[in-house]
Amino acid sequence: MNHLEMAAGRSGGATQIPYYQSIGGECALFQHAFEQRLPLLLKGPTGCGKTRFVQHMAARLDRPLYTVACHDDLTAADLTGRFLLRDGETQWVDGPLTRAVREGGICYLDEVVEARKDVTVVLHPLTDDRRLLPLERTGEQLQAPDDFMLVVSYNPGYQHILKALKPSTRQRFVALAFDFPPPEQERDIVARESGLDTPRATALVNLAARLRALKGQDLEEGVSTRLLIYCGSLIQAGVPVLEAARATLVEPLTDDADVQAGLLEALRATFGED
Amino acid sequence: MNHLEMAAGRSGGATQIPYYQSIGGECALFQHAFEQRLPLLLKGPTGCGKTRFVQHMAARLDRPLYTVACHDDLTAADLTGRFLLRDGETQWVDGPLTRAVREGGICYLDEVVEARKDVTVVLHPLTDDRRLLPLERTGEQLQAPDDFMLVVSYNPGYQHILKALKPSTRQRFVALAFDFPPPEQERDIVARESGLDTPRATALVNLAARLRALKGQDLEEGVSTRLLIYCGSLIQAGVPVLEAARATLVEPLTDDADVQAGLLEALRATFGED
Amino acid sequence: MNHLEMAAGRSGGATQIPYYQSIGGECALFQHAFEQRLPLLLKGPTGCGKTRFVQHMAARLDRPLYTVACHDDLTAADLTGRFLLRDGETQWVDGPLTRAVREGGICYLDEVVEARKDVTVVLHPLTDDRRLLPLERTGEQLQAPDDFMLVVSYNPGYQHILKALKPSTRQRFVALAFDFPPPEQERDIVARESGLDTPRATALVNLAARLRALKGQDLEEGVSTRLLIYCGSLIQAGVPVLEAARATLVEPLTDDADVQAGLLEALRATFGED
Amino acid sequence: MNHLEMAAGRSGGATQIPYYQSIGGECALFQHAFEQRLPLLLKGPTGCGKTRFVQHMAARLDRPLYTVACHDDLTAADLTGRFLLRDGETQWVDGPLTRAVREGGICYLDEVVEARKDVTVVLHPLTDDRRLLPLERTGEQLQAPDDFMLVVSYNPGYQHILKALKPSTRQRFVALAFDFPPPEQERDIVARESGLDTPRATALVNLAARLRALKGQDLEEGVSTRLLIYCGSLIQAGVPVLEAARATLVEPLTDDADVQAGLLEALRATFGED
Amino acid sequence: MNHLEMAAGRSGGATQIPYYQSIGGECALFQHAFEQRLPLLLKGPTGCGKTRFVQHMAARLDRPLYTVACHDDLTAADLTGRFLLRDGETQWVDGPLTRAVREGGICYLDEVVEARKDVTVVLHPLTDDRRLLPLERTGEQLQAPDDFMLVVSYNPGYQHILKALKPSTRQRFVALAFDFPPPEQERDIVARESGLDTPRATALVNLAARLRALKGQDLEEGVSTRLLIYCGSLIQAGVPVLEAARATLVEPLTDDADVQAGLLEALRATFGED
Amino acid sequence: MNHLEMAAGRSGGATQIPYYQSIGGECALFQHAFEQRLPLLLKGPTGCGKTRFVQHMAARLDRPLYTVACHDDLTAADLTGRFLLRDGETQWVDGPLTRAVREGGICYLDEVVEARKDVTVVLHPLTDDRRLLPLERTGEQLQAPDDFMLVVSYNPGYQHILKALKPSTRQRFVALAFDFPPPEQERDIVARESGLDTPRATALVNLAARLRALKGQDLEEGVSTRLLIYCGSLIQAGVPVLEAARATLVEPLTDDADVQAGLLEALRATFGED
Repeated sequence: MNHLEMAAGRSGGATQIPYYQSIGGECALFQHAFEQRLPLLLKGPTGCGKTRFVQHMAARLDRPLYTVACHDDLTAADLTGRFLLRDGETQWVDGPLTRAVREGGICYLDEVVEARKDVTVVLHPLTDDRRLLPLERTGEQLQAPDDFMLVVSYNPGYQHILKALKPSTRQRFVALAFDFPPPEQERDIVARESGLDTPRATALVNLAARLRALKGQDLEEGVSTRLLIYCGSLIQAGVPVLEAARATLVEPLTDDADVQAGLLEALRATFGED
Repeated sequence: MNHLEMAAGRSGGATQIPYYQSIGGECALFQHAFEQRLPLLLKGPTGCGKTRFVQHMAARLDRPLYTVACHDDLTAADLTGRFLLRDGETQWVDGPLTRAVREGGICYLDEVVEARKDVTVVLHPLTDDRRLLPLERTGEQLQAPDDFMLVVSYNPGYQHILKALKPSTRQRFVALAFDFPPPEQERDIVARESGLDTPRATALVNLAARLRALKGQDLEEGVSTRLLIYCGSLIQAGVPVLEAARATLVEPLTDDADVQAGLLEALRATFGED
Repeated sequence: MNHLEMAAGRSGGATQIPYYQSIGGECALFQHAFEQRLPLLLKGPTGCGKTRFVQHMAARLDRPLYTVACHDDLTAADLTGRFLLRDGETQWVDGPLTRAVREGGICYLDEVVEARKDVTVVLHPLTDDRRLLPLERTGEQLQAPDDFMLVVSYNPGYQHILKALKPSTRQRFVALAFDFPPPEQERDIVARESGLDTPRATALVNLAARLRALKGQDLEEGVSTRLLIYCGSLIQAGVPVLEAARATLVEPLTDDADVQAGLLEALRATFGED
Repeated sequence: MNHLEMAAGRSGGATQIPYYQSIGGECALFQHAFEQRLPLLLKGPTGCGKTRFVQHMAARLDRPLYTVACHDDLTAADLTGRFLLRDGETQWVDGPLTRAVREGGICYLDEVVEARKDVTVVLHPLTDDRRLLPLERTGEQLQAPDDFMLVVSYNPGYQHILKALKPSTRQRFVALAFDFPPPEQERDIVARESGLDTPRATALVNLAARLRALKGQDLEEGVSTRLLIYCGSLIQAGVPVLEAARATLVEPLTDDADVQAGLLEALRATFGED
Repeated sequence: MNHLEMAAGRSGGATQIPYYQSIGGECALFQHAFEQRLPLLLKGPTGCGKTRFVQHMAARLDRPLYTVACHDDLTAADLTGRFLLRDGETQWVDGPLTRAVREGGICYLDEVVEARKDVTVVLHPLTDDRRLLPLERTGEQLQAPDDFMLVVSYNPGYQHILKALKPSTRQRFVALAFDFPPPEQERDIVARESGLDTPRATALVNLAARLRALKGQDLEEGVSTRLLIYCGSLIQAGVPVLEAARATLVEPLTDDADVQAGLLEALRATFGED
Repeated sequence: MNHLEMAAGRSGGATQIPYYQSIGGECALFQHAFEQRLPLLLKGPTGCGKTRFVQHMAARLDRPLYTVACHDDLTAADLTGRFLLRDGETQWVDGPLTRAVREGGICYLDEVVEARKDVTVVLHPLTDDRRLLPLERTGEQLQAPDDFMLVVSYNPGYQHILKALKPSTRQRFVALAFDFPPPEQERDIVARESGLDTPRATALVNLAARLRALKGQDLEEGVSTRLLIYCGSLIQAGVPVLEAARATLVEPLTDDADVQAGLLEALRATFGED
């Protein structure tokens, strides 16, 4: 059984720490929460850097990171572990949450509202002062060590009623709100990740501001920093600007012909007819 | 197979008893119910101290404590036990309720309304004068010893119709209503648990009163004592007051921008602009 | 594999027969139904003594009693039996209904409307003149002996449409309606079970009449005889009267603040301010 | 593995044939359908004698009878068979339908509309001229012998839309409608089965006519012949007439107090105040 | 493991080919589709001869036929195969679709709209020019041989929205619409299959036309050719004409008393009062 | 365990590359996305050539292709792998996505919106800069090699709300919109694939334009290029033109008699009465 070993989370020196550009006091607050043994909740839109932030902090704190993308069918057993049949008998295999508790690592549950309710409830004894992980099926009750930390995230933009976190869960977390980075920082991130020059990165970020203004009216969600990087990468690779922008900033956002027309107009206003 | 052994529940002398500040006659009533062999139902909001109260009483009565956080997928088998495959044949493994009955301990089902209906029905023969736990799958019928006690809790604040306890279940319990502690007691709890000095703990408790007044209108549930302790811990660790308050008393409570603005105003009114 | 052996059901002499105070002709009718090999349906509210009545009759008739608390997830297999893996092969293990049929005992299905539909249908061939229990999975078809009897119960108070018994099931049973006992009898029961003296038991029964009058308007169901016994036990143990009454006759009945106020007023009118 | 052997179905001589009083040409039609190898559908209310009729015909035709009470959770595998683990490998065990096909018996599916859709579809190749039972899981395809017959029944009274038989299923059966027997015949049946004398049996049948007239207005379904027999048996055993009638002709039919009052009035009009 | 061997599908000479009376060019079109390796969709009402047509063509083309009656619980695994436990390890067993692909036979999915969605999607790679059957669980990807053909059918009469075939599935098939045969042909079929003489077969077919005219108003579906054959068989066996017609042309079509009265009137108009 | 080896995907020289006629810059964009290690989303109607395009590109890039047709019951385990019982113990077997990641191939998920939510979430860590495939059940975390590429497709035409891709998924892909090819290209494709001569292929393509104009009013989706090829193949095989057109361009598109009449009129206008 191989253990989950995130390249980033396990690495040693500072040169290995994944790039993350701090916006405000979020790095300090993460560190305080870690030291106070408090669980952390990250809120923010798609592709704004939450996952990268957690990778960055795990590396800075030199703790292994266990990331779990939550979904409708994720059950408590996927987190805590299950019995498998080996050598003719059932044998317990730890899940990622249990491994993080045993080793003292950071467990990051991405899009936690997507998980089934039994997942959020299994987190309760870990997120009050008991810091316990009861494994009902083995009869164990693990006491989390001081360097264990639980981080969860969700996107408040499309949380619907059936999927909202209950107050009894939310009120167990210190919470941090994320948003897309301010223009200068986003420009630097796009340039750094895609290799695009500064003027064209600036143009992309300006375009993003115009597209994000359409959110709520015509678009379910504004264009993400990630898509700007995709666009920059394709342009840098030689794809014509308008074609790259269409494939990364229009088609991934909507299927509606009218909304597409509006987006294309914004594209042409930015980059010209070619 | 390790047995569940709560550090608190199993511990011996009075020095090990978890801190709990009694509000009214709840400790005496718990003890009477235990002695009369009556099951107990605790009602109250998130984070007001129900779990701590049960830990405290279990230690005082020197009984092991088996805590189960209930959820949508918790079935009777998770409580009573199941057959697992060992050495090529199925072998019965007791669940936490069965263990508490066999040993004479306290079984605490947190948020019992979240459990599936078969869970509440499995409790019925244990909660009338028979005090029996029938294990249909093994054919056993356990008679609970005198020092077994069943305690359940739920939060009446967001009990919805589909999840309400049926009268035929509720009427099997002696019931106790909990609420947040009175200001002086809450101040002492916050100070004791976070290490904050009394004046700042008092300010936090006053702020809590203001925020709790918004419940029902703008907030699904008022701020819990637990979050006040989180806030105190971060302030004590050096996080700026407003930043700590935002991360513990605003972001965990709501995603609504307007409601957040109202909460932030209350914060600034309490702590000033910095 | 231990067989279910109810202390009461298996016991020999009359001194062991559980206390039950007959109201009308229900004991005679039960005996006639038993002798005519007819199945019996008991209807009545929570905590009025249906279960005790069945225990009493099983002891009088000297038949073992198999009680099953029905619920949403109870399947036919939980009643009839299932294959378990033993020594590397599947082995059949009888359920409680099958055991009652094989031995000639009384099988009592409490809250039968809660069970899944396959449960009620598995009862059909047992409840007409064939008196057969087909075990589809083993290929057996058991002929019930003359001293087998099936008893089911439900609470008509909160039977909703989805959960009603179909006419094709109901019309297979002789049926008996239960209600709370008349005041003098209830007083004797409360006094006997709680140890309370007669005047205070009388006061509790009078109070119960007042509280039951609120049923349908403010309360889903009236206070049960069982809760009166709980109240008497706590008072007898030294709990102040109003505190005992609040914990047993108010909090278990409702979470509604207004309804609670009305109930408390009735309490104070009965017991004075202290 | 014991085979299903219905006492009635397997029995030899005519003296063993279960009592059934023919109303019209139903016995002849059953026999023709059997000889023409056509499947048969019986329609009719609860407790009017459909099951007894099938038992009677199976005995007359000297074929084994396999009766299956259908329900929501009955799957095709319950009828056709399944693999069980024996001696360390999976072994196929025939279900009742497969046994009837292999041996040439009568398979009777009671309340067929209750079964899941896969059950009705598995019947399709058996109910056209192919008369095949494909066992997908073993890869067999059984050809039904000439003395195999499929009989199904349902109660048109409470067939709702979700549970109706599809035309593509119904149109595969020869169909017969049943109703309660005419008064003289019902009187003879009640007298014969309960031991009651003719005048009192006549009174019961007259009462039944009055109660059945309430169907649709106040009662979901009229009182069945079976309940009349129950009533007669209790009266014959010494239960007072009104008490017996209440327990068999009122309580099993309704929980509604007003409707009960109407039924009791009809009872008193028939039997006097007793 | 026995292979599915349809008597018809496997048989050799022309004398063994099941009787089918061609209406138009359907036999030629089937043959062209087979030769062009195109999948075929048959549409038409209950009991009009779709299954017989496929049996006939399979025999003419001398290909084995694998028929699967689809239903709500039919999954892709029922078609493609599954792992079973044999001799202590899991062993793959082909389903009927996989067998047809391996051997080059005709796989006929009757009432394909009833199957679960995963079934229709598993057909996609088989129904474009790739003609592939990917077996995800074994890792195989089977290339269908030239003499494999897929035929599916459904009844457009009661296809409802949730069960309609998606365009992306429908557009993968050559499609043929079926209806009841023209009067002369239907007369011949009824006479041949039931043994009835021509005048009476003609009368039945004329009656069918009158009954089919009621479809949509009072009847969900018109009377099928199959039911006419049933009726003829019973008459031929000596059942009185009106009784036979009632059991085959009225009761199987409706439970509604008014509609039954209308159908009976049409019967009497055809056959007289008998 | 056989590996999935697509004939096309594995083949070597250019002569083996499946025919695909490029419309615009789609081949270049696919290649850029592959080189930049960006995942690709294809949008477009049924049968317009998306699958062929992916086969073509996989062959050009000389990468193995793993195609998965998504459906309601497709779970993450079907993509990533599962434990199977072999030689008395559970053994891990890679799914197609895991194989593509290990070998560096192209994994193509057709109709990705049909898959269950856990499938789309399992794609998340593969579709950001981490390019990781976490296998929770084995504890492995695979780093995708540079020559791994993920391609997904869906048909925006009948994406309904419950099945739409979430923005957090969509915004992880570079996206390309497909449509039916322009008339000259479609004519060449039809002629090439069916063997039909150019004039008749032209007539079919003109007819298609007329039929596609009905989309949205009367037809859920326009006729696909694939159906035009089917029609051409049947005509080429000797089926009369109108009969071939009816079986390929009318019956597969609709069951509605009125719409069929309109389509047939368009057919006759194109091909004359014969």
